[in-house]
Amino acid sequence: MSASPASVRASAWAALERHARELAATRIAALFEDAPERARDMSASACGLYLDYSKQRMSARTRELLLALAEACALATWRERMFAGEAVNGTEDRAALHVALRWPPGQPMPGSTLARSAPQEVEQVLARIAAFCDAVRGARWTGFTGEPVRDVVNIGIGGSDLGPAMVCRALQAWSDGRLRCHFVSNVDSTDLASVLAACDPRSTLFIVASKTFSTEETLLNARSARAWLVAAAGGDEAAVQRHFVAVSSALERCAAFGIPAPNVFGFWDWVGGRYSLWSAIGLSIALFAGMDAFRALQRGAHAMDRHFLEAPAAMNLPVLLALIGVWNRSLLDCPTHAVLPYDHALALLPAYLQQLEMESNGKGVDRAGATLQRPAAPVLWGTLGNNGQHAFYQMMHQGLDSVPADIIVPAASQQPLPGHEDALVANALAQAEAFMRGRSLDEARASLAGSGLDGDALERAARHRVMPGNRASSVLLYRRLTPEVLGSLIALYEHKVFVQAVCWDINPFDQFGVELGKELAKSLRPLLEGRGEAGAHDASTRELVARVLALRAGQ
Amino acid sequence: MSASPASVRASAWAALERHARELAATRIAALFEDAPERARDMSASACGLYLDYSKQRMSARTRELLLALAEACALATWRERMFAGEAVNGTEDRAALHVALRWPPGQPMPGSTLARSAPQEVEQVLARIAAFCDAVRGARWTGFTGEPVRDVVNIGIGGSDLGPAMVCRALQAWSDGRLRCHFVSNVDSTDLASVLAACDPRSTLFIVASKTFSTEETLLNARSARAWLVAAAGGDEAAVQRHFVAVSSALERCAAFGIPAPNVFGFWDWVGGRYSLWSAIGLSIALFAGMDAFRALQRGAHAMDRHFLEAPAAMNLPVLLALIGVWNRSLLDCPTHAVLPYDHALALLPAYLQQLEMESNGKGVDRAGATLQRPAAPVLWGTLGNNGQHAFYQMMHQGLDSVPADIIVPAASQQPLPGHEDALVANALAQAEAFMRGRSLDEARASLAGSGLDGDALERAARHRVMPGNRASSVLLYRRLTPEVLGSLIALYEHKVFVQAVCWDINPFDQFGVELGKELAKSLRPLLEGRGEAGAHDASTRELVARVLALRAGQ
Repeated sequence: MSASPASVRASAWAALERHARELAATRIAALFEDAPERARDMSASACGLYLDYSKQRMSARTRELLLALAEACALATWRERMFAGEAVNGTEDRAALHVALRWPPGQPMPGSTLARSAPQEVEQVLARIAAFCDAVRGARWTGFTGEPVRDVVNIGIGGSDLGPAMVCRALQAWSDGRLRCHFVSNVDSTDLASVLAACDPRSTLFIVASKTFSTEETLLNARSARAWLVAAAGGDEAAVQRHFVAVSSALERCAAFGIPAPNVFGFWDWVGGRYSLWSAIGLSIALFAGMDAFRALQRGAHAMDRHFLEAPAAMNLPVLLALIGVWNRSLLDCPTHAVLPYDHALALLPAYLQQLEMESNGKGVDRAGATLQRPAAPVLWGTLGNNGQHAFYQMMHQGLDSVPADIIVPAASQQPLPGHEDALVANALAQAEAFMRGRSLDEARASLAGSGLDGDALERAARHRVMPGNRASSVLLYRRLTPEVLGSLIALYEHKVFVQAVCWDINPFDQFGVELGKELAKSLRPLLEGRGEAGAHDASTRELVARVLALRAGQ
Repeated sequence: MSASPASVRASAWAALERHARELAATRIAALFEDAPERARDMSASACGLYLDYSKQRMSARTRELLLALAEACALATWRERMFAGEAVNGTEDRAALHVALRWPPGQPMPGSTLARSAPQEVEQVLARIAAFCDAVRGARWTGFTGEPVRDVVNIGIGGSDLGPAMVCRALQAWSDGRLRCHFVSNVDSTDLASVLAACDPRSTLFIVASKTFSTEETLLNARSARAWLVAAAGGDEAAVQRHFVAVSSALERCAAFGIPAPNVFGFWDWVGGRYSLWSAIGLSIALFAGMDAFRALQRGAHAMDRHFLEAPAAMNLPVLLALIGVWNRSLLDCPTHAVLPYDHALALLPAYLQQLEMESNGKGVDRAGATLQRPAAPVLWGTLGNNGQHAFYQMMHQGLDSVPADIIVPAASQQPLPGHEDALVANALAQAEAFMRGRSLDEARASLAGSGLDGDALERAARHRVMPGNRASSVLLYRRLTPEVLGSLIALYEHKVFVQAVCWDINPFDQFGVELGKELAKSLRPLLEGRGEAGAHDASTRELVARVLALRAGQ
């Protein structure tokens, strides 16, 4: 009688838990002494990315047990199902086929009818995007006075904002300067107003990005932008279709807004918001960095898709990155994970990954609806590494909590200047080293030689300079951030999240947790207008509404 | 025989621990039922800020025990010592007298000689800043071709960057548009290069902000900026003093760089980097938003200083905010804390507070050098609230971990447009409500009525829609973000951090944890230039250096 899948998974977890207890007292530095080849053994590379995970708190045995967990969780089967376009988003009975968005249309894609036809459908939209970019960038698309487009304003939020904003920022060096690109997301009108103040209505193109064309924030911003444009056009509503395009599946709502079907770029229900930058949601990328860069971005992602599909698990970057995360989160109980890019072009990557990981795996129940036994996604946070050194690294080095980190390092800068690159790389690698190594009390004492301190004063000063060390980090290294490398990097994290979801047995593609807040906000709106019954809300919320009204009345 | 201070503290902690166990099973919603006046009782206001902390997982008894802890830790004495200019930064034997930076010079300041004389010294620097702003903004200060200044580039990192950058962003509405302000911090030259690409050397003024004028990143950026300027001036080094000023205490190093003493704005060793935006480090604020706004910012901070000094602890905003944080971190074991501003102008507040809290209290030893019994500063993270709703709130609502949050809400927007403000406030308050309330399985089932689901399918769908609730948050509400309100808000968090340091018995004013990384980086530099001995570094670091060199060589 063979064991049930659930009991196979349970024993893989149990083996990891035993192993974690055995390894608890072992320091990372000691693991290097035990295994002279550790630095090379615990590294892997693909698509121009080199991953060194030898400074994690794990041994070759840990890796073995983690790989066994992935197998026990049927990773290969789940991966196959995702690429085949099966309904891996079980709670919503949908595929999650973002890999089709970057699959070369001429090549066979494995699996179902959906997966076979999707790349062609995608190509048709991409062809429309290419033609549109040509028209806008070639100044054949003009505004209501005949001016070509100078400013592009993407209006969207969440997945319709973070992905394209992150990529446009990362590919600034690929812009020829013809177009400026802005991103408006926040419902606070200070966001839109400050962007509009820098734009001329005659030469501004708005992209309204909302799958359903009903996202509250996006529609409010779109309507306010529309009013600004129409006012500038002397009240001529016909100007709208020369200044607004949409990325949406809701053709009728777009038309009602004033955007006719030819100006709407569609996508599919198998594209989740946080996996959508490869679709028409990436229109701003194509406009800003050019269609060639957008295609290169997709090629890089596709290369990572192939690697994820084909490479053995022990050398598979997304699998490794995911299992390291599972180890830190579920076995070593680290509640947060830091992403620290040393590449200035990746300034928005932490915010992007925050959504990707926390919205995908920030769940409390498994696929069957049972409460999880361990928390899933950690809090993902971070900022540009060099800036972080002067901000919060203090806590990472000397606080009692351990924060595992991904340290992302370019060998060369996008916009190099003499002396900067070496300083950048030296800082990045030195921090990873310092996290692991720490500073012992003896070393701290030695560092104070010549300070003139002695006795108790020396001892106290030394204690304040001790760093526990044994803090885990991985380094992700590449030559230079190009659209291809960026595409591979993003796809790496997408698949990492998927692998973790498989290990934690959760559905990463739904997000029911965001619903309640929206419902409650809707029921609060009338109260803020002085109408409606407050009774359904708690005393604190009622009091806060009253305070807001009083403050607005100047009391 | 009276108890020792340490044993008084220990029993205050022990009482809190017992109480936390008693309260563990009580839900916040139940606390509202027990205390009808809870919403008003658990609120306080000062300086235009209204704090509602009734949706924290705490009772009136909790507050009582926390206030007893603060007393046991001699908060009043420590506060007095700080305001008096005593060496509260014990490990560095320095005062931390940032409150003197905003103390009205005509009014008596309590305490030591230092505290008595500091406001006058500050006023002298402020007068120089005011005169300089007049000259720049009045176009009397001109560049090497006689052009007035159009772009100001602040070159600094950490405290010399995050504070002024955050405030300039927050006070954009106070700018008259005469000057544009940029912030360059990262050692990756992509940062500087992309700013320079948008500037004209003839009308660009650089502020080099570094207390010691030796911060590696800042000096690298300053030298590269200098080279750019001198090249544009046809090699004329004399142009430097018309385009560079410094905020520094190191007059000789400034002079060697080409900045003469009249163009250097000083500060004092009693101003810590992360408390320095009120000093000459705020020069960019004064230039961008105007000296009046800078003075108003200081007035707001001073009002909070007075409140912190004078208000009873139970109504003292910094004390309350600090104790709530101690409760969540040290008694309820929440490893992170989210800051969620719904005011778009506060986009950079989370990054600013990350440094303020994590560099100050991210320590592992107490004042005496003994290892802490509980971790101190949590990971502080967050983003604009409305954007976060579409990114990571999923995890805050449905993940198994509890993330306490500060939700910061303006009753009115800085740049209002019809319909936006109500949506903003409704969303903010609704999220706080949803965090506390959650959605039970019954409610989830009810929400699916009419979905056509039944039996197991209904049950499973309902389970995916359950939200545990009982998630703690505070709301900080104000009418509209003005320079005064912003000043009060920043000072509120500064003092919060101080009160927490007192409770945790740590020195918040040093940062020895950042030293080791700098030392190791220095020793890695020669290796990247192909010189030196790698032996002192671990195998992973050596391998990474080799990979970097190989990547650069195109291998």
